[in-house]
Amino acid sequence: MASPSDHKATIIDGKAVAQTIRNEIAAEVHLLSQKYGKVPGLAVVIVGNRKDSQSYVSMKRKACAEVGIKSVDIDLPEQVSEAEVVCKVHELNANPDVHGILVQLPLPKHINEERVLTEISIEKDVDGFHPLNIGKLAMKGREPLFLPCTPKGCIELLSRSGVAIKGKKAVVVGRSNIVGLPVSLLLLKADATVTIVHSHSHDPESTIREADIIIAAAGQAMMIKGSWIKPGAAVIDVGTNAIDDKSKKSGYRLVGDVDFHEACKVAGCITPVPGGVGPMTVAMLLKNTLDGAKRTLES
Amino acid sequence: MASPSDHKATIIDGKAVAQTIRNEIAAEVHLLSQKYGKVPGLAVVIVGNRKDSQSYVSMKRKACAEVGIKSVDIDLPEQVSEAEVVCKVHELNANPDVHGILVQLPLPKHINEERVLTEISIEKDVDGFHPLNIGKLAMKGREPLFLPCTPKGCIELLSRSGVAIKGKKAVVVGRSNIVGLPVSLLLLKADATVTIVHSHSHDPESTIREADIIIAAAGQAMMIKGSWIKPGAAVIDVGTNAIDDKSKKSGYRLVGDVDFHEACKVAGCITPVPGGVGPMTVAMLLKNTLDGAKRTLES
Repeated sequence: MASPSDHKATIIDGKAVAQTIRNEIAAEVHLLSQKYGKVPGLAVVIVGNRKDSQSYVSMKRKACAEVGIKSVDIDLPEQVSEAEVVCKVHELNANPDVHGILVQLPLPKHINEERVLTEISIEKDVDGFHPLNIGKLAMKGREPLFLPCTPKGCIELLSRSGVAIKGKKAVVVGRSNIVGLPVSLLLLKADATVTIVHSHSHDPESTIREADIIIAAAGQAMMIKGSWIKPGAAVIDVGTNAIDDKSKKSGYRLVGDVDFHEACKVAGCITPVPGGVGPMTVAMLLKNTLDGAKRTLES
Repeated sequence: MASPSDHKATIIDGKAVAQTIRNEIAAEVHLLSQKYGKVPGLAVVIVGNRKDSQSYVSMKRKACAEVGIKSVDIDLPEQVSEAEVVCKVHELNANPDVHGILVQLPLPKHINEERVLTEISIEKDVDGFHPLNIGKLAMKGREPLFLPCTPKGCIELLSRSGVAIKGKKAVVVGRSNIVGLPVSLLLLKADATVTIVHSHSHDPESTIREADIIIAAAGQAMMIKGSWIKPGAAVIDVGTNAIDDKSKKSGYRLVGDVDFHEACKVAGCITPVPGGVGPMTVAMLLKNTLDGAKRTLES
C-alpha cells in the first residue's frame, strides 16, 4: 500500500464535464429546432455597468450561442427604476420565445432584488431561486420546475464521477440560499445523511472529518485543511476567493474554500478552483433553459 | 457526583407548557375582541367519518372554544367530490371571519390532497404546509407567514425549557414534510449545526450520540435506546406509536420513538409520550390562528 504522502486524489475536471454536458445540450437543441422549428431562448438581464457582472453576463451569453440557445440581451442603465425592471420582467414572462429569465445580481441598491425576482414567472425561473421552487425542493413528493444551477452542478459532478450518495455522510459547509441550503436539500433527496455546518458551528473540523462527501460553500479561502478531511472523501469545492499573489500580473489568484494542495494528499477525489464547480454552473443554466423550452414546446 | 444510574432527566411537561400558552392566547383573544369587536376564526374541515380524524377534529374544535377562537365547523360526507371540497376551500378563503383553514388529513382516496391544500390561501394556511411557506422557511432573509405547528411546538418546548440552540449539535431523526424537514430548517434558522438522519442512514446511533439536541420524528416505537443518547442531551420525542399492551383495557398503549425509561437515565431533559409534543401541536395551531387574525385585523 502506498504511504499517505504518496496519495494523490483524483481531480474532478469540471471544465471537461461541463463541456460534455454542453455538447449533449447542443445536440438536443438541434433536435428541438428540427422538430419544432424553434430553439430555446434565455433572457439575460443586466442593470448597470459593474465589471464583474458584465463579465459573468457575457460568459453566459457566449455559452448560449455555443449550444444554439438564443440569448435575449436586456441591458438596462444603472438609473433604471424598480418599476421599469419589473415591467421588463413581465414583458419577458409574456414572450413565448423566452423560456428562461436570468436577472444578474446584484442589482443597484435602489432596486429591491427580492421584489424583482419574485416577479419572474415560475415557469421561467431557470435560476431556481423562487421560494415556491425551493419549497418544492425541500418537500418529499414534490418536484421543483428547476433546480438551482450551482447545487445541481455539484450533484452532477458527483454522479458523473461515480461517487455514490445514498446512505453516505455528507457535510455541507455554509448555508447560503444560493448554494449551501439547496445543495443540502438535494443531497437529502438523494438519501445522504446530511449535516450543515456554518459560522456558528462549534468545532466544524470534527464534523467535517466524519464526511464521506464534503461540499465546501463557505466563501472562506482555504479554511478546510487537509487534516479535516477523511481519507478517501469526495470534496466539491464551491468557493471562489481572490487572494493576493504578487507573482501574478493581476496581483491575485483564485482559491477555493479547501486547501487544495493538502487535500489532494487525503481526499479520494476533489474539484479544483478554478475549473471545478464554476464551469458547471453555466452548463446547468443552459440545461435548465433547455428543459424549460422542452416543457413548453412538448406540451 | 451521582452515579449514572441515579441520574433522572428533567421531564418537559408539554401539557403544562401548552396550557400556559393557551392561557396567553385566551388573554390576547380577549384583547382583540375588545379592540376590534372580532375574534379569530378557524375553519376545521373534515371529510368522511374516520374515527381517528373525528377525534383529532373534535379536540381542535374544543381547544378553539376554550380560548375564545370561533371554530367554523365544516363536515363533508365521504362521497364528496374533489371539486366540492375545493369550492368549500375557496368559500372559506373569501370569508373575512375565517383567519385560518385546517383540512384534516388524510382525505378519502378519490381526492388529491396536494390539490386541495394548494388551494388554501397562503394568508390562512395555519398548518404552514404550503410549499411557498416551506420555501420561505428554508431561505435566509425570508419569513413564512406561518410555521408548521408540530415543529414550532418542538422549538417552543426547547426555548421554554431553557435549552440553548445556537451553536449546538442538533440531530433530527426522520425527514417527513410535516415534522422532520421543517424542524430541521427551524433549528438551522436558530443557528444549530443540524444533521438529518433517516431510514437510509448508516449507523444512525453514532450520529445521534453526538447530539446536544435530539428531535425524534421517525415513527418507530422506541427505536432510540438510552445508549444512543449523549449524557445531558435534550430529547424531544415527536413519535406517537401504539404498541400492544394486554394490561390496558384498550389492548394498547402509546409510546414515543425514544425508549423513555432508558433515556431518563441519560438525557438532561426529555418530553414524555403522551403529554409532550402532542399538546403543543394544538396550542401552536391556536397561536397561528391568532397570529393570522392579528395580521388581518391590525392591517
